[in-house]
Amino acid sequence: MKLIRFGKQGKEKPGVEISGKRLDCSSFGEDWSEEFFGSGGITKLAKWLQQEAPQLPEIPNSIRLGSPIKRPSKIICVGLNYSLHAKESNMPLPEVPILFMKATSSLCGPNDPIIIPKNSTKTDWEVELAVVIGEKASYVEKENAMDHVAGYCLHNDVSERDFQLHHGGQWVKGKSADHFAPLGPYLVTKDEIGDPHELRLWLKINGQMMQDSNTSDLVFDIPTLVSYISQYMTLLPGDIISTGTPSGVGLGLKPPKYLQHGDVVELGIDGLGEARQEAKNFEKL
Amino acid sequence: MKLIRFGKQGKEKPGVEISGKRLDCSSFGEDWSEEFFGSGGITKLAKWLQQEAPQLPEIPNSIRLGSPIKRPSKIICVGLNYSLHAKESNMPLPEVPILFMKATSSLCGPNDPIIIPKNSTKTDWEVELAVVIGEKASYVEKENAMDHVAGYCLHNDVSERDFQLHHGGQWVKGKSADHFAPLGPYLVTKDEIGDPHELRLWLKINGQMMQDSNTSDLVFDIPTLVSYISQYMTLLPGDIISTGTPSGVGLGLKPPKYLQHGDVVELGIDGLGEARQEAKNFEKL
Repeated sequence: MKLIRFGKQGKEKPGVEISGKRLDCSSFGEDWSEEFFGSGGITKLAKWLQQEAPQLPEIPNSIRLGSPIKRPSKIICVGLNYSLHAKESNMPLPEVPILFMKATSSLCGPNDPIIIPKNSTKTDWEVELAVVIGEKASYVEKENAMDHVAGYCLHNDVSERDFQLHHGGQWVKGKSADHFAPLGPYLVTKDEIGDPHELRLWLKINGQMMQDSNTSDLVFDIPTLVSYISQYMTLLPGDIISTGTPSGVGLGLKPPKYLQHGDVVELGIDGLGEARQEAKNFEKL
Repeated sequence: MKLIRFGKQGKEKPGVEISGKRLDCSSFGEDWSEEFFGSGGITKLAKWLQQEAPQLPEIPNSIRLGSPIKRPSKIICVGLNYSLHAKESNMPLPEVPILFMKATSSLCGPNDPIIIPKNSTKTDWEVELAVVIGEKASYVEKENAMDHVAGYCLHNDVSERDFQLHHGGQWVKGKSADHFAPLGPYLVTKDEIGDPHELRLWLKINGQMMQDSNTSDLVFDIPTLVSYISQYMTLLPGDIISTGTPSGVGLGLKPPKYLQHGDVVELGIDGLGEARQEAKNFEKL
Protein backbone atom coordinates (compact mmCIF):
# COMPACT_ATOMS: atom_id res chain seq x y z
CA MET A 1 0.00 0.00 0.00
CA LYS A 2 0.89 3.62 -0.41
CA LEU A 3 -0.25 5.75 2.52
CA ILE A 4 -0.69 9.49 2.09
CA ARG A 5 -1.94 12.36 4.21
CA PHE A 6 -3.55 15.36 2.55
CA GLY A 7 -5.02 18.77 3.32
CA LYS A 8 -3.84 21.86 5.17
CA GLN A 9 -0.71 21.67 7.31
CA GLY A 10 -1.59 20.46 10.79
CA LYS A 11 -5.09 19.40 9.64
CA GLU A 12 -4.12 16.53 7.34
CA LYS A 13 -6.47 13.63 6.71
CA PRO A 14 -5.39 10.07 5.96
CA GLY A 15 -5.61 8.53 2.51
CA VAL A 16 -4.09 5.98 0.18
CA GLU A 17 -2.87 6.03 -3.38
CA ILE A 18 -4.00 3.09 -5.52
CA SER A 19 -3.09 2.85 -9.21
CA GLY A 20 -2.29 6.56 -9.27
CA LYS A 21 -5.62 7.56 -7.69
CA ARG A 22 -5.65 9.26 -4.30
CA LEU A 23 -8.47 8.10 -2.04
CA ASP A 24 -9.78 9.71 1.15
CA CYS A 25 -9.65 7.22 4.06
CA SER A 26 -11.14 9.53 6.73
CA SER A 27 -13.94 6.99 7.19
CA PHE A 28 -11.39 4.40 8.38
CA GLY A 29 -11.40 6.45 11.58
CA GLU A 30 -7.66 6.57 12.29
CA ASP A 31 -4.78 8.79 11.28
CA TRP A 32 -1.44 7.23 10.22
CA SER A 33 0.04 7.68 13.68
CA GLU A 34 2.02 5.83 16.34
CA GLU A 35 -1.22 4.23 17.56
CA PHE A 36 -2.13 3.14 14.02
CA PHE A 37 1.21 1.47 13.28
CA GLY A 38 1.45 0.04 16.78
CA SER A 39 -1.92 -1.69 16.68
CA GLY A 40 -1.58 -3.63 13.45
CA GLY A 41 -3.19 -0.77 11.55
CA ILE A 42 -1.58 -1.60 8.21
CA THR A 43 -3.09 -5.09 8.17
CA LYS A 44 -6.50 -3.80 9.26
CA LEU A 45 -6.40 -1.04 6.66
CA ALA A 46 -5.50 -3.46 3.86
CA LYS A 47 -8.46 -5.64 4.75
CA TRP A 48 -10.81 -2.65 5.05
CA LEU A 49 -9.71 -1.35 1.64
CA GLN A 50 -10.64 -4.63 -0.06
CA GLN A 51 -14.28 -3.79 0.71
CA GLU A 52 -14.24 -0.02 0.85
CA ALA A 53 -11.82 1.21 -1.80
CA PRO A 54 -14.40 1.39 -4.61
CA GLN A 55 -16.62 3.70 -2.54
CA LEU A 56 -13.94 6.07 -1.24
CA PRO A 57 -13.98 9.71 -2.39
CA GLU A 58 -11.20 10.56 -4.81
CA ILE A 59 -8.87 13.43 -3.86
CA PRO A 60 -7.99 15.87 -6.64
CA ASN A 61 -4.25 15.98 -7.38
CA SER A 62 -4.34 19.71 -6.66
CA ILE A 63 -4.82 19.08 -2.94
CA ARG A 64 -1.65 19.50 -0.87
CA LEU A 65 0.07 16.37 0.42
CA GLY A 66 1.35 16.42 4.00
CA SER A 67 3.86 14.16 5.69
CA PRO A 68 2.51 10.63 5.09
CA ILE A 69 2.82 9.86 8.78
CA LYS A 70 1.54 11.90 11.67
CA ARG A 71 4.31 13.49 13.75
CA PRO A 72 6.23 10.58 15.28
CA SER A 73 8.08 10.46 18.58
CA LYS A 74 11.43 10.91 16.86
CA ILE A 75 13.41 11.30 13.67
CA ILE A 76 16.78 9.59 13.98
CA CYS A 77 19.22 10.33 11.18
CA VAL A 78 22.32 8.44 10.21
CA GLY A 79 25.38 10.48 9.26
CA LEU A 80 28.01 9.65 6.65
CA ASN A 81 26.38 6.38 5.61
CA TYR A 82 27.55 6.50 1.96
CA SER A 83 31.31 6.35 1.51
CA LEU A 84 31.62 9.06 -1.17
CA HIS A 85 29.54 11.43 0.98
CA ALA A 86 31.86 10.91 3.94
CA LYS A 87 34.76 11.73 1.60
CA GLU A 88 33.17 14.91 0.21
CA SER A 89 32.42 16.00 3.81
CA ASN A 90 36.11 15.52 4.72
CA MET A 91 35.09 13.04 7.40
CA PRO A 92 36.44 9.52 7.92
CA LEU A 93 34.16 6.60 7.08
CA PRO A 94 32.49 5.75 10.39
CA GLU A 95 33.17 2.42 12.09
CA VAL A 96 29.70 2.43 13.64
CA PRO A 97 26.57 4.34 12.61
CA ILE A 98 26.72 8.06 13.47
CA LEU A 99 23.34 9.05 14.90
CA PHE A 100 21.76 12.44 15.35
CA MET A 101 18.25 13.76 15.79
CA LYS A 102 16.10 16.12 13.85
CA ALA A 103 13.28 17.93 15.67
CA THR A 104 9.97 16.39 14.60
CA SER A 105 8.63 19.94 14.27
CA SER A 106 10.67 20.12 11.04
CA LEU A 107 8.39 17.61 9.25
CA CYS A 108 6.38 18.85 6.28
CA GLY A 109 4.77 17.66 3.06
CA PRO A 110 6.80 16.42 0.07
CA ASN A 111 6.06 19.45 -2.11
CA ASP A 112 6.02 22.15 0.55
CA PRO A 113 8.63 24.89 0.22
CA ILE A 114 12.03 24.44 1.82
CA ILE A 115 12.24 27.43 4.13
CA ILE A 116 15.72 28.96 4.24
CA PRO A 117 15.94 30.02 7.89
CA LYS A 118 16.76 33.51 9.12
CA ASN A 119 20.54 34.10 9.13
CA SER A 120 21.17 31.08 6.90
CA THR A 121 23.69 31.18 4.09
CA LYS A 122 24.30 27.42 3.79
CA THR A 123 20.99 25.57 3.45
CA ASP A 124 21.81 22.26 1.77
CA TRP A 125 19.97 19.24 0.35
CA GLU A 126 20.21 15.52 1.19
CA VAL A 127 18.06 12.91 -0.54
CA GLU A 128 17.58 9.93 1.79
CA LEU A 129 15.70 6.69 2.16
CA ALA A 130 13.62 6.96 5.35
CA VAL A 131 12.60 3.80 7.18
CA VAL A 132 9.34 3.92 9.16
CA ILE A 133 9.10 1.72 12.26
CA GLY A 134 6.03 -0.49 12.47
CA GLU A 135 6.59 -2.20 15.78
CA LYS A 136 8.32 -1.11 19.00
CA ALA A 137 12.01 -2.05 18.85
CA SER A 138 14.29 -2.38 21.88
CA TYR A 139 17.46 -4.52 21.82
CA VAL A 140 16.43 -6.10 18.55
CA GLU A 141 18.74 -8.56 16.79
CA LYS A 142 19.73 -7.85 13.19
CA GLU A 143 18.04 -11.10 12.12
CA ASN A 144 14.63 -9.91 13.35
CA ALA A 145 15.07 -6.22 12.67
CA MET A 146 12.97 -6.14 9.49
CA ASP A 147 9.95 -7.38 11.47
CA HIS A 148 9.93 -3.95 13.09
CA VAL A 149 9.80 -2.01 9.81
CA ALA A 150 6.47 -0.78 8.39
CA GLY A 151 7.78 0.71 5.17
CA TYR A 152 9.78 3.43 3.47
CA CYS A 153 9.53 7.06 2.41
CA LEU A 154 11.46 9.55 0.33
CA HIS A 155 13.04 12.18 2.61
CA ASN A 156 15.03 15.36 2.07
CA ASP A 157 17.18 15.78 5.20
CA VAL A 158 17.58 19.53 4.70
CA SER A 159 20.63 20.84 6.57
CA GLU A 160 22.09 24.22 7.40
CA ARG A 161 25.85 23.61 7.32
CA ASP A 162 26.94 26.61 9.36
CA PHE A 163 24.35 25.87 12.04
CA GLN A 164 25.31 22.17 11.95
CA LEU A 165 29.09 22.45 11.99
CA HIS A 166 30.15 25.90 13.13
CA HIS A 167 27.64 27.11 15.72
CA GLY A 168 29.06 25.13 18.64
CA GLY A 169 28.38 21.58 19.68
CA GLN A 170 26.01 19.09 18.17
CA TRP A 171 24.54 18.72 14.65
CA VAL A 172 20.91 19.06 15.78
CA LYS A 173 21.13 22.87 15.42
CA GLY A 174 21.49 22.57 11.67
CA LYS A 175 18.88 19.89 11.13
CA SER A 176 15.77 21.07 12.91
CA ALA A 177 14.32 24.23 11.33
CA ASP A 178 10.70 24.20 10.20
CA HIS A 179 10.29 22.50 6.81
CA PHE A 180 13.71 20.83 7.06
CA ALA A 181 12.11 17.37 6.75
CA PRO A 182 9.90 17.13 3.67
CA LEU A 183 8.63 13.54 3.68
CA GLY A 184 6.80 11.57 1.03
CA PRO A 185 4.81 11.68 -1.31
CA TYR A 186 3.79 8.45 0.40
CA LEU A 187 4.80 5.75 2.80
CA VAL A 188 5.21 2.54 0.81
CA THR A 189 4.64 -0.56 2.91
CA LYS A 190 7.59 -2.93 2.86
CA ASP A 191 5.72 -5.70 1.00
CA GLU A 192 5.71 -3.46 -2.10
CA ILE A 193 9.48 -2.94 -2.12
CA GLY A 194 11.47 -5.99 -3.14
CA ASP A 195 14.94 -5.18 -1.88
CA PRO A 196 15.29 -1.77 -0.18
CA HIS A 197 19.04 -2.03 -0.76
CA GLU A 198 18.67 -1.89 -4.54
CA LEU A 199 16.92 1.44 -5.07
CA ARG A 200 18.24 4.31 -7.13
CA LEU A 201 17.96 7.67 -5.37
CA TRP A 202 18.58 11.03 -6.99
CA LEU A 203 18.18 14.76 -6.49
CA LYS A 204 18.21 17.66 -8.96
CA ILE A 205 18.58 21.40 -8.41
CA ASN A 206 16.95 23.54 -11.12
CA GLY A 207 16.93 20.52 -13.42
CA GLN A 208 20.58 19.64 -12.91
CA MET A 209 21.39 16.23 -11.40
CA MET A 210 23.32 16.68 -8.15
CA GLN A 211 22.93 13.34 -6.35
CA ASP A 212 22.54 10.05 -8.19
CA SER A 213 23.29 6.89 -6.33
CA ASN A 214 21.81 3.62 -5.11
CA THR A 215 20.93 2.30 -1.66
CA SER A 216 23.22 -0.64 -2.48
CA ASP A 217 26.01 1.77 -1.49
CA LEU A 218 24.79 2.17 2.11
CA VAL A 219 27.67 1.55 4.53
CA PHE A 220 25.27 0.21 7.21
CA ASP A 221 22.18 -1.51 5.86
CA ILE A 222 18.66 -1.24 7.24
CA PRO A 223 18.66 -4.30 9.56
CA THR A 224 22.01 -3.16 10.98
CA LEU A 225 20.66 0.33 11.64
CA VAL A 226 17.41 -0.80 13.28
CA SER A 227 19.27 -3.25 15.49
CA TYR A 228 22.05 -0.79 16.33
CA ILE A 229 19.77 2.13 17.21
CA SER A 230 17.57 -0.14 19.33
CA GLN A 231 20.56 -0.80 21.62
CA TYR A 232 20.60 2.89 22.57
CA MET A 233 16.91 3.83 22.64
CA THR A 234 13.48 2.34 22.10
CA LEU A 235 12.11 2.85 18.61
CA LEU A 236 8.36 3.42 18.64
CA PRO A 237 5.83 2.72 15.88
CA GLY A 238 5.88 5.58 13.37
CA ASP A 239 9.45 6.60 14.27
CA ILE A 240 11.60 7.55 11.31
CA ILE A 241 15.16 6.45 10.63
CA SER A 242 16.67 8.48 7.82
CA THR A 243 19.45 6.31 6.48
CA GLY A 244 21.91 8.91 5.22
CA THR A 245 22.63 10.72 1.98
CA PRO A 246 24.92 9.88 -0.95
CA SER A 247 27.50 12.27 -2.36
CA GLY A 248 26.53 15.38 -4.30
CA VAL A 249 25.38 17.72 -1.55
CA GLY A 250 26.17 21.43 -1.75
CA LEU A 251 28.81 21.21 0.96
CA GLY A 252 30.83 18.76 -1.14
CA LEU A 253 30.99 20.85 -4.32
CA LYS A 254 34.09 22.82 -5.22
CA PRO A 255 33.25 25.60 -4.54
CA PRO A 256 30.33 24.71 -2.24
CA LYS A 257 26.88 25.76 -3.43
CA TYR A 258 23.78 26.26 -1.31
CA LEU A 259 20.08 26.81 -1.86
CA GLN A 260 18.95 30.27 -2.94
CA HIS A 261 15.44 31.70 -2.86
CA GLY A 262 13.61 30.36 -5.92
CA ASP A 263 15.75 27.25 -6.45
CA VAL A 264 13.73 24.17 -7.34
CA VAL A 265 14.70 20.85 -5.74
CA GLU A 266 13.38 17.64 -7.27
CA LEU A 267 14.15 14.24 -5.81
CA GLY A 268 13.08 10.64 -6.06
CA ILE A 269 13.72 7.04 -5.06
CA ASP A 270 12.73 3.97 -7.11
CA GLY A 271 9.30 2.86 -5.96
CA LEU A 272 8.96 5.65 -3.39
CA GLY A 273 7.86 8.40 -5.75
CA GLU A 274 9.12 11.89 -6.38
CA ALA A 275 8.88 15.26 -4.66
CA ARG A 276 9.42 18.88 -5.69
CA GLN A 277 10.36 21.64 -3.28
CA GLU A 278 10.95 25.30 -3.95
CA ALA A 279 13.43 27.09 -1.70
CA LYS A 280 12.04 30.23 -0.09
CA ASN A 281 13.71 32.72 2.19
CA PHE A 282 11.99 32.95 5.58
CA GLU A 283 11.74 36.70 5.10
CA LYS A 284 9.90 36.32 1.78
CA LEU A 285 7.25 33.82 2.89
CA MET B 1 -0.22 25.27 40.48
CA LYS B 2 1.54 21.97 40.70
CA LEU B 3 0.56 19.58 37.92
CA ILE B 4 1.09 15.86 38.34
CA ARG B 5 0.27 12.74 36.37
CA PHE B 6 -0.33 9.47 38.17
CA GLY B 7 -1.05 5.81 37.56
CA LYS B 8 0.55 3.05 35.50
CA GLN B 9 3.24 3.93 32.96
CA GLY B 10 1.60 4.83 29.66
CA LYS B 11 -1.84 5.06 31.28
CA GLU B 12 -1.27 8.12 33.47
CA LYS B 13 -4.13 10.39 34.47
CA PRO B 14 -3.83 14.12 35.15
CA GLY B 15 -3.93 15.61 38.61
CA VAL B 16 -2.76 18.49 40.76
CA GLU B 17 -1.10 18.79 44.12
CA ILE B 18 -2.60 21.41 46.43
CA SER B 19 -1.28 21.92 49.96
CA GLY B 20 0.38 18.52 49.86
CA LYS B 21 -2.80 16.72 48.73
CA ARG B 22 -2.86 15.00 45.35
CA LEU B 23 -6.17 15.42 43.51
CA ASP B 24 -7.47 13.50 40.49
CA CYS B 25 -8.34 15.90 37.63
CA SER B 26 -9.60 13.26 35.18
CA SER B 27 -12.95 15.06 35.14
CA PHE B 28 -11.28 18.15 33.65
CA GLY B 29 -11.23 16.11 30.44
CA GLU B 30 -7.71 16.88 29.24
CA ASP B 31 -4.27 15.42 29.81
CA TRP B 32 -1.29 17.75 30.44
CA SER B 33 -0.24 17.61 26.79
CA GLU B 34 0.86 19.82 23.92
CA GLU B 35 -2.81 20.59 23.19
CA PHE B 36 -3.46 21.49 26.83
CA PHE B 37 -0.53 23.91 27.13
CA GLY B 38 -1.11 25.32 23.65
CA SER B 39 -4.76 26.21 24.25
CA GLY B 40 -4.45 28.22 27.45
CA GLY B 41 -5.06 25.08 29.50
CA ILE B 42 -3.25 26.32 32.59
CA THR B 43 -5.52 29.36 32.90
CA LYS B 44 -8.64 27.28 32.26
CA LEU B 45 -7.54 24.66 34.77
CA ALA B 46 -6.86 27.27 37.47
CA LYS B 47 -10.38 28.67 37.01
CA TRP B 48 -11.94 25.21 36.98
CA LEU B 49 -10.12 24.26 40.19
CA GLN B 50 -11.56 27.24 42.05
CA GLN B 51 -14.97 25.55 41.78
CA GLU B 52 -14.04 21.89 41.55
CA ALA B 53 -11.06 21.32 43.85
CA PRO B 54 -13.12 20.56 46.98
CA GLN B 55 -15.00 17.76 45.17
CA LEU B 56 -12.02 16.08 43.49
CA PRO B 57 -11.04 12.56 44.57
CA GLU B 58 -7.84 12.45 46.57
CA ILE B 59 -5.04 10.18 45.29
CA PRO B 60 -3.22 8.07 47.86
CA ASN B 61 0.49 8.87 48.09
CA SER B 62 1.21 5.22 47.34
CA ILE B 63 0.08 5.65 43.72
CA ARG B 64 2.94 5.95 41.22
CA LEU B 65 3.68 9.38 39.76
CA GLY B 66 4.43 9.59 36.05
CA SER B 67 6.08 12.34 34.07
CA PRO B 68 4.02 15.46 34.92
CA ILE B 69 3.63 16.22 31.23
CA LYS B 70 2.47 13.89 28.51
CA ARG B 71 5.24 12.96 26.06
CA PRO B 72 6.18 16.22 24.32
CA SER B 73 7.47 16.72 20.79
CA LYS B 74 11.05 17.10 22.02
CA ILE B 75 13.46 17.27 24.91
CA ILE B 76 16.28 19.71 24.18
CA CYS B 77 19.18 19.62 26.59
CA VAL B 78 21.84 22.23 27.16
CA GLY B 79 25.39 21.00 27.64
CA LEU B 80 28.08 22.47 29.89
CA ASN B 81 25.88 25.28 31.21
CA TYR B 82 27.54 25.50 34.65
CA SER B 83 31.17 26.56 34.58
CA LEU B 84 32.46 24.03 37.14
CA HIS B 85 30.75 21.19 35.27
CA ALA B 86 32.45 22.22 32.03
CA LYS B 87 35.76 22.14 33.92
CA GLU B 88 35.17 18.69 35.46
CA SER B 89 34.22 17.40 31.98
CA ASN B 90 37.51 18.71 30.58
CA MET B 91 35.60 20.85 28.10
CA PRO B 92 35.99 24.58 27.45
CA LEU B 93 33.22 26.88 28.67
CA PRO B 94 30.96 27.26 25.63
CA GLU B 95 30.59 30.62 23.91
CA VAL B 96 27.04 29.76 22.86
CA PRO B 97 24.63 27.18 24.28
CA ILE B 98 25.53 23.59 23.34
CA LEU B 99 22.32 21.80 22.38
CA PHE B 100 21.53 18.12 22.09
CA MET B 101 18.42 15.99 22.12
CA LYS B 102 17.18 13.21 24.28
CA ALA B 103 14.65 10.75 22.84
CA THR B 104 11.25 11.49 24.37
CA SER B 105 10.85 7.72 24.83
CA SER B 106 13.30 8.08 27.74
CA LEU B 107 10.75 10.02 29.87
CA CYS B 108 9.52 8.38 33.07
CA GLY B 109 8.16 9.21 36.49
CA PRO B 110 10.21 10.94 39.20
CA ASN B 111 10.51 7.86 41.42
CA ASP B 112 10.75 5.19 38.72
CA PRO B 113 13.96 3.17 38.65
CA ILE B 114 16.90 4.37 36.60
CA ILE B 115 17.50 1.48 34.24
CA ILE B 116 21.20 0.83 33.64
CA PRO B 117 21.15 -0.20 29.96
CA LYS B 118 22.62 -3.42 28.58
CA ASN B 119 26.37 -3.10 28.04
CA SER B 120 26.57 0.01 30.21
CA THR B 121 29.41 0.58 32.65
CA LYS B 122 29.13 4.38 32.92
CA THR B 123 25.57 5.39 33.75
CA ASP B 124 25.79 8.83 35.36
CA TRP B 125 23.49 11.35 37.08
CA GLU B 126 22.74 15.01 36.27
CA VAL B 127 20.29 17.05 38.32
CA GLU B 128 18.81 19.79 36.13
CA LEU B 129 16.16 22.48 36.07
CA ALA B 130 13.80 21.68 33.20
CA VAL B 131 11.80 24.46 31.57
CA VAL B 132 8.44 23.54 30.04
CA ILE B 133 7.25 25.56 27.06
CA GLY B 134 3.73 26.97 27.29
CA GLU B 135 3.43 28.73 23.96
CA LYS B 136 4.91 28.02 20.54
CA ALA B 137 8.25 29.83 20.20
CA SER B 138 9.93 30.63 16.90
CA TYR B 139 12.47 33.44 16.55
CA VAL B 140 11.57 34.81 19.95
CA GLU B 141 13.45 37.78 21.43
CA LYS B 142 15.06 37.39 24.84
CA GLU B 143 12.82 40.15 26.17
CA ASN B 144 9.65 38.17 25.42
CA ALA B 145 11.04 34.68 25.97
CA MET B 146 9.48 34.15 29.40
CA ASP B 147 6.00 34.63 27.88
CA HIS B 148 6.59 31.24 26.21
CA VAL B 149 7.38 29.40 29.44
CA ALA B 150 4.66 27.44 31.30
CA GLY B 151 6.72 26.37 34.28
CA TYR B 152 9.51 24.22 35.65
CA CYS B 153 10.28 20.64 36.67
CA LEU B 154 13.02 18.73 38.42
CA HIS B 155 14.86 16.51 35.90
CA ASN B 156 17.60 13.91 36.10
CA ASP B 157 19.34 13.95 32.70
CA VAL B 158 20.67 10.41 33.09
CA SER B 159 23.65 9.85 30.79
CA GLU B 160 25.77 6.89 29.70
CA ARG B 161 29.23 8.40 29.28
CA ASP B 162 30.72 5.70 27.07
CA PHE B 163 27.68 5.75 24.78
CA GLN B 164 27.74 9.57 24.80
CA LEU B 165 31.42 10.21 24.24
CA HIS B 166 33.11 7.10 22.90
CA HIS B 167 30.64 5.28 20.66
CA GLY B 168 31.14 7.49 17.61
CA GLY B 169 29.48 10.75 16.74
CA GLN B 170 26.83 12.64 18.62
CA TRP B 171 25.81 12.70 22.29
CA VAL B 172 22.25 11.48 21.66
CA LYS B 173 23.42 7.84 21.92
CA GLY B 174 24.21 8.28 25.60
CA LYS B 175 21.13 10.26 26.54
CA SER B 176 18.17 8.34 25.18
CA ALA B 177 17.74 4.96 26.87
CA ASP B 178 14.41 4.14 28.51
CA HIS B 179 14.08 5.76 31.94
CA PHE B 180 16.94 8.19 31.26
CA ALA B 181 14.63 11.17 31.84
CA PRO B 182 12.86 10.93 35.21
CA LEU B 183 10.79 14.12 35.42
CA GLY B 184 8.92 15.64 38.34
CA PRO B 185 7.36 15.09 40.93
CA TYR B 186 5.36 17.95 39.41
CA LEU B 187 5.37 20.78 36.95
CA VAL B 188 5.27 24.02 38.91
CA THR B 189 3.71 26.88 36.98
CA LYS B 190 5.98 29.88 36.65
CA ASP B 191 3.78 32.16 38.79
CA GLU B 192 4.72 30.03 41.83
CA ILE B 193 8.47 30.42 41.33
CA GLY B 194 9.80 33.87 42.12
CA ASP B 195 13.15 33.88 40.37
CA PRO B 196 14.06 30.64 38.59
CA HIS B 197 17.68 31.81 38.65
CA GLU B 198 17.90 31.64 42.44
CA LEU B 199 17.09 27.99 43.15
CA ARG B 200 19.31 25.56 44.96
CA LEU B 201 19.61 22.20 43.22
CA TRP B 202 21.23 19.10 44.67
CA LEU B 203 21.66 15.38 44.17
CA LYS B 204 22.72 12.62 46.55
CA ILE B 205 23.88 9.05 45.91
CA ASN B 206 23.18 6.65 48.77
CA GLY B 207 22.77 9.61 51.09
CA GLN B 208 26.02 11.33 50.10
CA MET B 209 25.76 14.80 48.57
CA MET B 210 27.29 14.77 45.07
CA GLN B 211 25.87 17.89 43.40
CA ASP B 212 24.95 21.03 45.34
CA SER B 213 24.67 24.24 43.43
CA ASN B 214 22.30 27.04 42.49
CA THR B 215 20.67 28.06 39.22
CA SER B 216 22.28 31.48 39.76
CA ASP B 217 25.41 29.78 38.37
CA LEU B 218 23.83 29.05 34.96
CA VAL B 219 26.11 30.28 32.18
CA PHE B 220 23.14 30.97 29.87
CA ASP B 221 19.93 31.93 31.66
CA ILE B 222 16.43 30.80 30.75
CA PRO B 223 15.37 33.74 28.53
CA THR B 224 18.67 33.41 26.63
CA LEU B 225 18.12 29.66 26.11
CA VAL B 226 14.50 29.97 24.94
CA SER B 227 15.40 32.76 22.54
CA TYR B 228 18.54 31.01 21.29
CA ILE B 229 16.92 27.63 20.68
CA SER B 230 13.97 29.27 18.93
CA GLN B 231 16.40 30.59 16.26
CA TYR B 232 17.16 26.99 15.26
CA MET B 233 13.83 25.20 15.67
CA THR B 234 10.27 25.83 16.70
CA LEU B 235 9.53 25.07 20.34
CA LEU B 236 6.06 23.64 20.81
CA PRO B 237 3.85 23.75 23.91
CA GLY B 238 4.92 21.04 26.33
CA ASP B 239 8.47 20.87 24.94
CA ILE B 240 11.17 20.51 27.56
CA ILE B 241 14.42 22.45 27.76
CA SER B 242 16.74 20.88 30.30
CA THR B 243 19.08 23.68 31.28
CA GLY B 244 22.24 21.75 32.15
CA THR B 245 23.80 20.23 35.23
CA PRO B 246 26.20 21.64 37.84
CA SER B 247 29.46 19.96 38.85
CA GLY B 248 29.53 16.74 40.83
CA VAL B 249 28.60 14.14 38.23
CA GLY B 250 30.27 10.73 38.26
CA LEU B 251 32.39 11.54 35.21
CA GLY B 252 34.03 14.43 37.06
CA LEU B 253 35.11 12.48 40.14
CA LYS B 254 38.70 11.32 40.56
CA PRO B 255 38.47 8.43 39.97
CA PRO B 256 35.11 8.55 38.12
CA LYS B 257 32.21 6.72 39.75
CA TYR B 258 29.06 5.46 38.09
CA LEU B 259 25.71 4.04 39.12
CA GLN B 260 25.61 0.43 40.28
CA HIS B 261 22.56 -1.79 40.67
CA GLY B 262 20.90 -0.86 43.96
CA ASP B 263 22.29 2.67 44.25
CA VAL B 264 19.73 5.20 45.45
CA VAL B 265 19.65 8.62 43.80
CA GLU B 266 17.83 11.46 45.54
CA LEU B 267 17.57 14.92 44.04
CA GLY B 268 15.72 18.16 44.49
CA ILE B 269 15.34 21.79 43.48
CA ASP B 270 13.93 24.55 45.71
CA GLY B 271 10.20 24.81 45.05
CA LEU B 272 10.19 21.99 42.51
CA GLY B 273 10.12 19.09 44.94
CA GLU B 274 12.25 16.01 45.35
CA ALA B 275 12.59 12.65 43.62
CA ARG B 276 14.11 9.29 44.49
CA GLN B 277 15.34 6.79 41.94
CA GLU B 278 16.86 3.38 42.46
CA ALA B 279 19.37 2.20 39.85
CA LYS B 280 18.55 -1.21 38.40
CA ASN B 281 20.45 -3.27 35.87
CA PHE B 282 18.38 -3.96 32.75
CA GLU B 283 19.09 -7.67 33.21
CA LYS B 284 17.70 -7.67 36.75
CA LEU B 285 14.41 -5.90 36.07
